[in-house]
Amino acid sequence: MHLEDCESPVERSCCLIELDANDGGNYDIVNDVSSPAAGDCCSRQSSASHNWEMNYQEAAIYLQEGENNDKFFTHPKDAKALAAYLFAHNHLFYLMELTTALLLLLLSLCEAPAVPMLRLGIYVHATLELFALVVVVFELSMKMRWLGFHTYIKHKRTMVKTFVLFVQFIEAIVVLVRQTSHVRVTRALRCIFLVDCRYCGAVRRNLRQIFQSLPPFIDILALLLFFMVIFGILGFYLFSPNHSDPYFSTLENSFVNLFVLLTTSNFPDVMMPSYARNPWSCVFFIVYLSIELYFIMNLLLAVVFDTFNDIEKKKFKSLLLHKRTAIQHAYRLLITKQNLSGISFKHLEGLLRFYKPRMCARDRYLTFKALNQSNTPLVSLKDFYNFYEVVGLKWKAKRNREHWFDDLPRTAFLIFKGINILVKSQAFQYAMYTVVAVNGIWILVETFMLQVYGVELLLKTTGLGPIEYLSSGWNFFDFLVTLFAFLGLLTLAFNMEPFYFIVVLRPIQLLRLFKLKKRYRNVLDTMFELFPRMASLGLTLLIFYYCFAIVGMEFFAGIVYPNCCNTSTVADSYRWLNHTVGNKTVVEEGYYYLNNFDNVLNSFVTLFELTVVNDWYIIMEGVTSQTSHWSRLYFMTFYIVTMVVMTIIVAFILEAFVFRMNYMRKNQDSEEDNGIVLEKEIFKEEMVAVTELYKINCATSEVAQLQKIITQMIKYEQPSMVFLGRRSRTKSDLSIKMYEEEIQEWYEEHARKEEYRQRQEDLPFSNNPLKPLGLRQRSQTVI
Amino acid sequence: MHLEDCESPVERSCCLIELDANDGGNYDIVNDVSSPAAGDCCSRQSSASHNWEMNYQEAAIYLQEGENNDKFFTHPKDAKALAAYLFAHNHLFYLMELTTALLLLLLSLCEAPAVPMLRLGIYVHATLELFALVVVVFELSMKMRWLGFHTYIKHKRTMVKTFVLFVQFIEAIVVLVRQTSHVRVTRALRCIFLVDCRYCGAVRRNLRQIFQSLPPFIDILALLLFFMVIFGILGFYLFSPNHSDPYFSTLENSFVNLFVLLTTSNFPDVMMPSYARNPWSCVFFIVYLSIELYFIMNLLLAVVFDTFNDIEKKKFKSLLLHKRTAIQHAYRLLITKQNLSGISFKHLEGLLRFYKPRMCARDRYLTFKALNQSNTPLVSLKDFYNFYEVVGLKWKAKRNREHWFDDLPRTAFLIFKGINILVKSQAFQYAMYTVVAVNGIWILVETFMLQVYGVELLLKTTGLGPIEYLSSGWNFFDFLVTLFAFLGLLTLAFNMEPFYFIVVLRPIQLLRLFKLKKRYRNVLDTMFELFPRMASLGLTLLIFYYCFAIVGMEFFAGIVYPNCCNTSTVADSYRWLNHTVGNKTVVEEGYYYLNNFDNVLNSFVTLFELTVVNDWYIIMEGVTSQTSHWSRLYFMTFYIVTMVVMTIIVAFILEAFVFRMNYMRKNQDSEEDNGIVLEKEIFKEEMVAVTELYKINCATSEVAQLQKIITQMIKYEQPSMVFLGRRSRTKSDLSIKMYEEEIQEWYEEHARKEEYRQRQEDLPFSNNPLKPLGLRQRSQTVI
Repeated sequence: MHLEDCESPVERSCCLIELDANDGGNYDIVNDVSSPAAGDCCSRQSSASHNWEMNYQEAAIYLQEGENNDKFFTHPKDAKALAAYLFAHNHLFYLMELTTALLLLLLSLCEAPAVPMLRLGIYVHATLELFALVVVVFELSMKMRWLGFHTYIKHKRTMVKTFVLFVQFIEAIVVLVRQTSHVRVTRALRCIFLVDCRYCGAVRRNLRQIFQSLPPFIDILALLLFFMVIFGILGFYLFSPNHSDPYFSTLENSFVNLFVLLTTSNFPDVMMPSYARNPWSCVFFIVYLSIELYFIMNLLLAVVFDTFNDIEKKKFKSLLLHKRTAIQHAYRLLITKQNLSGISFKHLEGLLRFYKPRMCARDRYLTFKALNQSNTPLVSLKDFYNFYEVVGLKWKAKRNREHWFDDLPRTAFLIFKGINILVKSQAFQYAMYTVVAVNGIWILVETFMLQVYGVELLLKTTGLGPIEYLSSGWNFFDFLVTLFAFLGLLTLAFNMEPFYFIVVLRPIQLLRLFKLKKRYRNVLDTMFELFPRMASLGLTLLIFYYCFAIVGMEFFAGIVYPNCCNTSTVADSYRWLNHTVGNKTVVEEGYYYLNNFDNVLNSFVTLFELTVVNDWYIIMEGVTSQTSHWSRLYFMTFYIVTMVVMTIIVAFILEAFVFRMNYMRKNQDSEEDNGIVLEKEIFKEEMVAVTELYKINCATSEVAQLQKIITQMIKYEQPSMVFLGRRSRTKSDLSIKMYEEEIQEWYEEHARKEEYRQRQEDLPFSNNPLKPLGLRQRSQTVI
Repeated sequence: MHLEDCESPVERSCCLIELDANDGGNYDIVNDVSSPAAGDCCSRQSSASHNWEMNYQEAAIYLQEGENNDKFFTHPKDAKALAAYLFAHNHLFYLMELTTALLLLLLSLCEAPAVPMLRLGIYVHATLELFALVVVVFELSMKMRWLGFHTYIKHKRTMVKTFVLFVQFIEAIVVLVRQTSHVRVTRALRCIFLVDCRYCGAVRRNLRQIFQSLPPFIDILALLLFFMVIFGILGFYLFSPNHSDPYFSTLENSFVNLFVLLTTSNFPDVMMPSYARNPWSCVFFIVYLSIELYFIMNLLLAVVFDTFNDIEKKKFKSLLLHKRTAIQHAYRLLITKQNLSGISFKHLEGLLRFYKPRMCARDRYLTFKALNQSNTPLVSLKDFYNFYEVVGLKWKAKRNREHWFDDLPRTAFLIFKGINILVKSQAFQYAMYTVVAVNGIWILVETFMLQVYGVELLLKTTGLGPIEYLSSGWNFFDFLVTLFAFLGLLTLAFNMEPFYFIVVLRPIQLLRLFKLKKRYRNVLDTMFELFPRMASLGLTLLIFYYCFAIVGMEFFAGIVYPNCCNTSTVADSYRWLNHTVGNKTVVEEGYYYLNNFDNVLNSFVTLFELTVVNDWYIIMEGVTSQTSHWSRLYFMTFYIVTMVVMTIIVAFILEAFVFRMNYMRKNQDSEEDNGIVLEKEIFKEEMVAVTELYKINCATSEVAQLQKIITQMIKYEQPSMVFLGRRSRTKSDLSIKMYEEEIQEWYEEHARKEEYRQRQEDLPFSNNPLKPLGLRQRSQTVI
C-alpha cells in the first residue's frame, strides 16, 4: 500500500483523526470530517485500516530491531517472511529455543561418563538428543523462512549453528546405531545452541567483546611468553647443574615451571632448592616475578582496560545510531502525505498496539503527550527520536492524596500519620542504626533483637504502605535481610537440624550499617547496577567451562584415583593410606584425587579450582603423570582462556565503577538518584476526545478503561489529572549525559553520511525526502 | 633594598641595559646612558649590583621552590637564614644526608642478628650509629637556622624526625653503656631519615599518595572483612561437626583460614576435607571466592584506581598553580619601577646565573629570546609564565652541515654519505629485522649472527655519528642489547665459568623484533616513561620491607630451623630427614626453614615470598607454632600493607597507560613524538650587543664564549645563526595538553582568589600591584 491510499476522502474520514492545538496547551481531538455513526465506520474502515495495520506492524518491528541491535538486513521482506518473523519472535518461541539448548547441555549429565545418580541408558539419552536436535531443525527452518535463503547463508552465526547441528545429528545417529558412546569431543560445541538463544544476547555481546579485546591481549601475552622463554633458558643454564633441583632439570621442565610461576602457584617451592645452595639465586626469581607478574601482567590489564573502554564507547555510539536509524525507518512508515511534518496520535497509537501490546489506552495517550514537545497535534521526527526514552516510562496518577491511608476514618488516619512522621524522621533512622550496631556486639549471644527488626518492618510497611516501602531498593534490601534473619530465628526455635546454618545469616543484619556511608551506597548501587552484566559474564565463563569440561571428560575421565600418581612429584597430594599405628587407625588423605574429570559436575569443580590457580600444578601434574605430557597443553590453554575472561571481568568492573564515579562528579547537584521522572497533565476534554476516538474504532475495553478515569475526574471535580512517568536510570542514560557534546558530532556525521548515501541512490525526492522502505513496497504486491 | 634604589641615575647607567625592538625583529642592545669606560663601571657598580644580586638569588630560590613544590612558608626570611638555606641546598649537602641515612639503614646488616659475614662488635656499630646520628643533628640544626624556630616546630615531618633522632640517640647510648643489644624495634623508624632526604622526594610523594588513597581502601577492606566474618561463622557452623576437617575446627581457625583463602593461598586444600564428605560443600567456597576475590577485591582496585586518578589530577593542578605563584613572586623581584611591564635581559641573565649556574651565556640569551614572544625588549609576566617549559630546553646550533662527516675530505665524505643513506633506508631496517628473526630460529645453535649485529652497530655508529646514534632511545636500546650479547659471546669464547649465564642473554636480541609493532612501541615507550616512578614505588615498598624486617627480626629471629615445627599442620615443609634406604642416603628436605628472619637479607627474601602470597600460610604457621598465635597479626598486617602498595602500583600502571593512550587518541596527528623543539634565530648584531654587555660586567669567560660564536658567523659569512632548543616531553606537558580547557578555569579561579586575598590585605597599590616580598624587605635592614 502507498501513502496515496490515504488521500481518498473515505479513508481519511476514518484514518486521520487529528489533534489541534488550542492556545492554552489544552487539546481537543476533532475529526476533520463530521464523524459518521460509529458502527458505520467500523464496518467501512476494514480494508484501509488493514493496510495501515501492516505499516504499524512493520514500524514496530523496526523499533524492536533498533532496540535489540538486530541488523536491518534481517528485516522481513514479504508477508510470508513476516509471518515467520512473528512466529519466531515471541516469548513462547524463545522459551522453546532456550529449553532445547538447556536440554542438550544437560544431557552431558546423563551421558557416559555420567553423574552416578543420573545415568541414563544409551537409547534414552540418544533419543532425547535426537528429539532436541529435531526441534532445533524446526527452529532453523522457521528462521530460514523469515530470512530467505540468501540472507540465511550470509548470516555467519546461523551457518555455524547449522553445521554444528549437522555434526551432532550424525553423531547421535551413530551412537544409536552402534549402541555405544564413542569419543565425542564435539559435544563441546553444543554451547552454540545456548549462545544463539534470544535470551542470551548479553552472552553474545560479552563474547564479541572478548574477541575484540583479543588482539591487544595476544600482543602482550607474546611479550609475557617471550620473557618466559628467555628466563627459561637462563634458568636452565643456571640451575640444571644442581641435581637436587627437579624444577630446572630439563629445558621443558624449566619452561613449565616458569609458566606455573607466572601464576605464583609454585612459588617459594620452585626457588627453594637453588636458594638452599646459593642465597643469591633468589635474585633470578625476584627479577622474573617483578617483570612478569608485577609489570607485564598489570600492563596486560591496562591494555585490556583501555581497549575495553574504547569498545564500550564505540558500542554505545553504534547502538545509539542504530536506534536513530530504526526510528527514522519507523517514522517514514507512520507519516501520511498530508502531514509530512509528523505522526498523528492515531498512528502512534497503532504503532504502540504492536510495539507494546500490554500498554493500556491511557498510557498510549500519555506516551504521545510525552513525546510531543511542540504544541502541534503531530509528533515531529525530532520529538520521535526520544521514543525509546519515553516508551519505557511507567505511568501512575499523581495522587492528591499524599498517603495511602488518607481515605481512612479520622482516628486511624491520625495514628497512621503519626507512624508516617515517625518513620520518616532522622531520629528514627539513627535509632535503628544504633540498634543494629548494638546488635552487632550482641549478635553472637542474643536473638532478641530480631523482634525489634520485625517491629520496624511492620511499622515501616504500615507507615509507608507496602508498595512504597518495597519500591525503594534499600528498603527491599532491609526486608530481605530481616526475612533471612527471621528464618534463622525460626530454625533456632524449632531446632530444625538441616537448616541450622540459616541461623548464621543473622549477622547479615549488620550489612544495614553500610548504608550509613556514602561510599558504600555508591559501591552497593554500582553493584546492583552491575549485577545483570556480571551474571551474563558469569554465564559466558560457564560456557567456556562447559567446553573444557567436555574435552576434559573425554580425555581424562577415570584416570585419577587414590594413590594413582606415585611416580610423579606430587604423589603426596594423591595419597590415601589407611595404616595402623599402635591400636589407632590413621588415615593419611591427600584428597587431590577428588579433583577429577569423572563427570560434568566434578569437572566444573576442578575447573573452578584451576581458575583460582592456586596449586593448580598439582592437578596438572597428577593428570600428566597418568597420561602424556601433552595434557599440559589443556591446562595451560585453560589458564590463558580464564585469564582473558577474568581480565575482562576486572576491566568491566573498573570501567563501570570509574564511569559511575565520573558521572557523579560531573553531576554533583543531582546526587540523589530517583530515576527519570516525567510529569504530564491531561484535561478532561482531551480524555473525552480520546475516548470518542476509541469508540469509533469499536475498542470497547479501552473505552471502558478511559471512561473510568473520566468518572474519577468528575467524582473529585478536577478539571485535569496529573500523571507521573517513571523509570530507573540505565547506563545508556548516563552515557548520553556523559558524552553529550560528542553525541551531537556523531549525529551530524551520521546525517552527513546518510545524506551522501541518499544522494548516491539518486532519488528525485526534493520536497519529500522520505521514502517508503522494504516490506511496505512489496506488501503492496502481495496483499 | 627597594626598587627606588634603581632610580638613582648612577645605578641606572650600569644596571638598566635594555633591548630596544627594531622593526625587523632585529635587536640592538643599547645602554640608555652613554656607557662609561668598562673598567670604570666595573668598580662603580658594586654596591647597587650587590643589592640586585640579592634579588636574583631570591627570585631563583622562589623558582626552585616552585619546581620542587616546597611550600613558601619555608622561604628563608633574612640573610642568616639565606646563608643556611644556601648551605643546606646543594648537592654536597644532599649527598651527606643520603649517605648518613643509608649508613643508618645498613647498620642493621651488622647489628645482632647480623648477616654472618658482616657481623661487627657492639662497640663498633654503636659508635658508627652515634656518629651518623651526630651528623643528622648537624643537618637538623642547619635546617632550624634556615627555617627559624617557629617554622621548624610547625613542620611536621621535621618534628617527627627530631623525635626519632632523640629516641635513637638514647638507645645508642644505652647500648654502648650496657655493652649488649636489647630489643630495638625502634630501629624500624630509621627509615624516616631516608624518606626525609632531598633525593627521596618521589618516595615522599608516593607515601603521601598511599595515605590519601587509604580512606576508600579501608572502607572496602571493612566490607571484605565483614563478609569474611559472616562466612567464618557460617563455615564454623557447617564444617566443625566434621572432625577430619582441621580448617574449621574452632572459630579462630575458621577466620584465619578464610583470611588465607582471600589470598587463594590454601585453596583447594581448605575445601578438600568437607568436599570429600559432601560434594555440595564446594558451593560455600565458590560463593565465598566469587564475592570476596572476584568481586570485592576488584572493586577495591576500582575504588583505589578512581581515587588515584582524582589525586593525580589534583596534584597536577596544585603543582601547576604553585609554579605559577612562584613565577609571580620571582617576577616581582625582577622588574624595576621604570619598567613595570616586564623583565629586561640583564635581570633575566642575573636570575639565570643563580637558577642554573652551569648555563652558558649563549643559552641564557636564547632563553630570553624564547621567553620573549612580543617584539619588545622586555619579558612580560605572561611570557614569563612559560619559564619552566623554556628553561629546560637544551640548545644546539642548527647545523648547515647536515652530517658529522661533511667536513671530511671528498672520498671519505662519499663513503660515509653512502653508509648514511644505507643506514637510513627502509630496506636496511627490514633486512636487519629479518636477520633478527632468522637469529631467533638459530639462536640456540649459532653464535655467528652476533658478529652481524656488531657490524650493524659499527655501521650505524659511523653512519649517524655516535652522538646522534645514541640520542635515540631505541638505538640506545639496540646498543645495550648488542653489548650484552657480545659479553655473552666473550664468556663463551674464553670459557669463563662464573659468567657463563651471560651467554643466555643473547636471545634478548629478539626484543628488537618488538619494535616493529606499534602497540609494542607504545607499551615500551610507556615503560620507559614509567621507569622512574616505578623505581620510586619500588623504593617505597622496600622502606615498608625494612620496617617489617626489623620488627620480624626482633621477634622471630632464630626460631625457625629444620624439623622445628613438628607439632604444626605444616610440619612436612620444615622437615629435614637424612635416612638410609637400602645403601642409598635419601635426603628429605622441606626447605621452608630457609624462609626465616635470622638476618636482614633473609628477612627481605621471606617478605618477598609473603608479598607473592603463594603458600605464605606455611611460613605463617611455622612461625606461629614456635611462638604464639598472636604472630599471625604480624603476617596479616604485612599482607594488608603490601596489598595497599600493590594496588597502588597497579592503579599507577593503569593510570599511566590509559592516560597515554587517551593522549595519543586526542593527538593522532602528532603521533611520532620527538619531544619539544623550539627554533630561534640570532643575528650577528644582537650577538655583538650581548657581548658588549658582558664586557661591561667584566665576565671574561662569557665574552670569550660569545666571541667564538661571532667568529664562526664571520667565518661562514652568515648574517644570523639558528639554534634549536630541545627537551623530551614530560607527563606535565601531556597533562597541560589534556586538561587545556580546565587549566584556563583553574587559572581564573586562582587569580580571583589571589585578588580577593590581596584585597583582604588592603594594600594601597593601585598603579603598581606588585609588592616586594619576604627577604627583600628584611634584607634592607640587614645589609
